[in-house]
Amino acid sequence: MKNLPHKTIERLSQYRRALLLCHAKGMVHIYSHEIAKIQHITPVQVRRDIMLIGYTGTLRKGYNVKELIDLIGQIIDSEEGINVCVVGIGNLGRAITNYFSGKRTKLSIAAVFDVELSKVGKKYYRIDCFHIDDIPRIIKERKIEIGIMTVPGEDAPAIAEMLVKAGIKGLLNYTPKPVNVPDDIYLEEYDMITSLEKVAFFVKTHH
Amino acid sequence: MKNLPHKTIERLSQYRRALLLCHAKGMVHIYSHEIAKIQHITPVQVRRDIMLIGYTGTLRKGYNVKELIDLIGQIIDSEEGINVCVVGIGNLGRAITNYFSGKRTKLSIAAVFDVELSKVGKKYYRIDCFHIDDIPRIIKERKIEIGIMTVPGEDAPAIAEMLVKAGIKGLLNYTPKPVNVPDDIYLEEYDMITSLEKVAFFVKTHH
Repeated sequence: MKNLPHKTIERLSQYRRALLLCHAKGMVHIYSHEIAKIQHITPVQVRRDIMLIGYTGTLRKGYNVKELIDLIGQIIDSEEGINVCVVGIGNLGRAITNYFSGKRTKLSIAAVFDVELSKVGKKYYRIDCFHIDDIPRIIKERKIEIGIMTVPGEDAPAIAEMLVKAGIKGLLNYTPKPVNVPDDIYLEEYDMITSLEKVAFFVKTHH
Repeated sequence: MKNLPHKTIERLSQYRRALLLCHAKGMVHIYSHEIAKIQHITPVQVRRDIMLIGYTGTLRKGYNVKELIDLIGQIIDSEEGINVCVVGIGNLGRAITNYFSGKRTKLSIAAVFDVELSKVGKKYYRIDCFHIDDIPRIIKERKIEIGIMTVPGEDAPAIAEMLVKAGIKGLLNYTPKPVNVPDDIYLEEYDMITSLEKVAFFVKTHH
């Protein structure tokens, strides 16, 4: 399963999110077209992705919700769990820390970092806040493998470098500044202005 | 320019972001391979996108930074500007409001909404906060065309319906719950858990 395409992983994660909601509502089976409707994609796409991970439903009942949740978990989750840190505990860093805290057992925020001394030593949603100078030590001690950056754009390159040097394997960059990392580090970047500008373009052209 | 692909718009927005940083540093010209390096894509992709909007650089100097910034602006920005609202002024709503406030003259947050009475009537980063019951009136009065949802997932469908009924044309959904909107409304959804799970999958498979 090592070489599943990025887009498939993204969709499997989204299917699981939808399936967890269905499971909570007491649904036992679900059809591909129902998943497709929730995710705004085609049933063919859903069936193709789920076939890729070696699962098939039945024609009469569709997929078993619980089985599919567990199978997606086996594929995308790490068995031992993965520790994550958030660097920059402003509004966005807090939103992310609060959002993840306790949501997924296999992904947990093990530390948050900030440069402001008034924040250091506090807890945010039960997670310890350290000074960014402690990044190398804490990353090692707490076996943190993923860093989420929510610092101001101008600090992004320096923080990315610190995280990579400290041994991080994956980086999520939520600052407006793209960063460079070595080839063996997985980098995901997201900029809110880009998303809003895309929506604005389509609003403008459909006036 | 109406039918530029979504992905091209996304990249043009990102090129502009990079070009603005270069312009601020005093750069006058830039080569396609320099833009490509910042954005982690190929120079061919950059040249193709920029040719699509009818601009060409010179072989010796590359593109004129200022000209390209202005041209991208003409294509993706709305001349009269577009008003945006944020629904849900928790950590994420605040991060977004602070982030956009004053960053782009053509996109401005004209109101924020929340259900908590302690927030209603206050200002967040100089923007008035109203109760969500006032969505229909304020959307009309302040000519708001785009809604950004940062409410809890369970509230997302109801808020999306209110925004659409109030006349919104584009919707950015930052809640973990996908929503349905009519075909003529442009919808962009982003879930942080999906991004983190994708990074985690690649970290896991490269152990």
